Amino acid sequence: MKVTPWEVEGEVDYERLLREFGAAPLDIRGMELPKPVLLPLRRGYFYAHRDFDKFVEDWREGKRVSIVTGRGPSGPMHLGHILPFYTAKWFQDKMDAFVFIPISDDEKYLVKRKLKVKDVESFALNNVLDILSVGFNPEKTRIAIDMKDTELYRPAVVVSKRVTFSTMRALFGLTQESNVGWVFYPAMQMVHLYIPQILYGPHRVLVPVAIDQDPYIRVARDVAESIGLVKTAGLLSKFMPSLESPSGKMSTSDGGEEKVIWLTDDRDTIRRKIMKYAFSGGQPTVEEHRKYGGRPEIDVSFLYLYYFFEEDDRKIREIEEGYRSGELLTGELKDYAAKKIADFLEAHQKRKEKLLRRDLEDVVESFSFREDERRRIKEWGREF
Amino acid sequence: MKVTPWEVEGEVDYERLLREFGAAPLDIRGMELPKPVLLPLRRGYFYAHRDFDKFVEDWREGKRVSIVTGRGPSGPMHLGHILPFYTAKWFQDKMDAFVFIPISDDEKYLVKRKLKVKDVESFALNNVLDILSVGFNPEKTRIAIDMKDTELYRPAVVVSKRVTFSTMRALFGLTQESNVGWVFYPAMQMVHLYIPQILYGPHRVLVPVAIDQDPYIRVARDVAESIGLVKTAGLLSKFMPSLESPSGKMSTSDGGEEKVIWLTDDRDTIRRKIMKYAFSGGQPTVEEHRKYGGRPEIDVSFLYLYYFFEEDDRKIREIEEGYRSGELLTGELKDYAAKKIADFLEAHQKRKEKLLRRDLEDVVESFSFREDERRRIKEWGREF
Repeated sequence: MKVTPWEVEGEVDYERLLREFGAAPLDIRGMELPKPVLLPLRRGYFYAHRDFDKFVEDWREGKRVSIVTGRGPSGPMHLGHILPFYTAKWFQDKMDAFVFIPISDDEKYLVKRKLKVKDVESFALNNVLDILSVGFNPEKTRIAIDMKDTELYRPAVVVSKRVTFSTMRALFGLTQESNVGWVFYPAMQMVHLYIPQILYGPHRVLVPVAIDQDPYIRVARDVAESIGLVKTAGLLSKFMPSLESPSGKMSTSDGGEEKVIWLTDDRDTIRRKIMKYAFSGGQPTVEEHRKYGGRPEIDVSFLYLYYFFEEDDRKIREIEEGYRSGELLTGELKDYAAKKIADFLEAHQKRKEKLLRRDLEDVVESFSFREDERRRIKEWGREF
Repeated sequence: MKVTPWEVEGEVDYERLLREFGAAPLDIRGMELPKPVLLPLRRGYFYAHRDFDKFVEDWREGKRVSIVTGRGPSGPMHLGHILPFYTAKWFQDKMDAFVFIPISDDEKYLVKRKLKVKDVESFALNNVLDILSVGFNPEKTRIAIDMKDTELYRPAVVVSKRVTFSTMRALFGLTQESNVGWVFYPAMQMVHLYIPQILYGPHRVLVPVAIDQDPYIRVARDVAESIGLVKTAGLLSKFMPSLESPSGKMSTSDGGEEKVIWLTDDRDTIRRKIMKYAFSGGQPTVEEHRKYGGRPEIDVSFLYLYYFFEEDDRKIREIEEGYRSGELLTGELKDYAAKKIADFLEAHQKRKEKLLRRDLEDVVESFSFREDERRRIKEWGREF
């Protein structure tokens, strides 16, 4: 197992990661969350946290809360990329959270040798359209693109004075041969996490991310108070399982384009990919399956339904029990999962089509920093 | 001797520096320079170069040429700080050069532990006023302040992808414990040197600086062609001698505030400082001086006159010979040098007073990037 913010390899042991990273295990019983509780939150996809309890408490007390979740534009987005934004939208809908969405075109440009500026620029625009198709409220959502919204450089200078090369190296696996942009980038990412506080004063900001991104949260927490900000809170998830492995991470790195579900895939394509590639917890033959039953806990189709797509608690229990008993066959389970995923993506695609009929510049503008917000960023941090 | 871009210690051996840095010795005979040739250029204060011959040739062929010379705003400016800007103005007046003046508030903030953002901001404004008092043409001069004109971050990302930590460490003495902003800063400074080309397309840009800044020119030259730009040219000077040492560097680091000539010093103060501190090449007593004569080549007052303030070639020769023969006494030499420096600074101060009677925001604005220039910076480099 190898898990860093830029690389995930092998079978992931989530409990070990939790211990190594030193985050707290998540137990939402006793937390007064708005109903219905977000599926990945109540079904254990989010399984660890830092100060999530304080975040919920602040919200209950009527205080302002914010969410930061970003995107590194290295290509088109797949299912695993978009789900965090639906999580962010839940917090916006249910807790009135301000949502900040940083697009780190600088990071992807600096880290991926072959990418040119025009590549990351074009991916950034493409990705922004998908993110906006989630349906955020433009009054309470801002999107910034690092190499376009360069005001962010100024607070990044303030932050970067407080972190040494050796700290960044230990956290992010930099080497002596890393380019100096890459060395600096974590300071930009720390600023991303601070932006809601820079815009609207100190308050609790929650970062819902996969656990491999926890080092960024840790270093942001370490510095926050020295620059007058509240420590960043983190809500840490497992990885979106890849089609071929329940404990892998959905990624184009190994499997290529064919083995992930793209946001643009149609119903037939989704069904074909699930049927062909989704790792099954069932038995090799129907007879054996009927006799011994399947293992839902390692079945990718089941896990997708369980974590993301089957809201109905009774229904998911029926599926789990039916599959375990052998009554529900793998083909039937896959068929149902493919249908639910296709329903979800069709709704997403419809919102995107609607978006594409509008003036895109206007749309993007309505989610960009307002003039007074840019001024606040430019004036922040004089006393540090 | 210790000479790095951030520290100069001990007696400086200029010939050795030249060999170590690998720049070419400067010989202006045979170069068709505009007349009258800038004093520090014709008297050997500038003593080394990289492609200065090509720069002059380009100008003679009617091509566009530019100058970049900047300022790190760590405090008020003294005589040694302002002279490079008079050099830049000479190139603007005589060669119609575009002049770009970067103010690296980020660098000073990152390198000086005790400085706060508000400190460097305030020094930056103060310094800009002194620089503008030199009398640049607003049509052909731009001033940018890194933490204000953050568009520069974008090209800095492009540049930073092309330089590794180990390269920067070797050139600039970074350590593992350097903050990551400092590690990144050289990429910003490289962008400073490229800005005229980013704004107006590839052409020869000359950077007249003290030789300790040569590493920045070298690394800028190494990268330039890979991003479609002409290699940066350098005109390398000795250090402005400190009052107390002909081969030191005028600096507040050792001597404190009293032992440098500030731009705000009045005639009496200048005279007092020269009389009291200026290192003398004369003999201990008038009698011995009359008998053995003085040594102009190590006399700081003489060197100031020679390099910067006595335009008249016949007059400087008279002074040199008179001093060497013992006819001219140290007190007389100092008196004359103090008068010439005071004349120079009074003219500077008068221009500054006139400037301060105008709307300062308007003045600064007239030297800031125009909207179309900002757009060019934001659009540059897509293909890299």
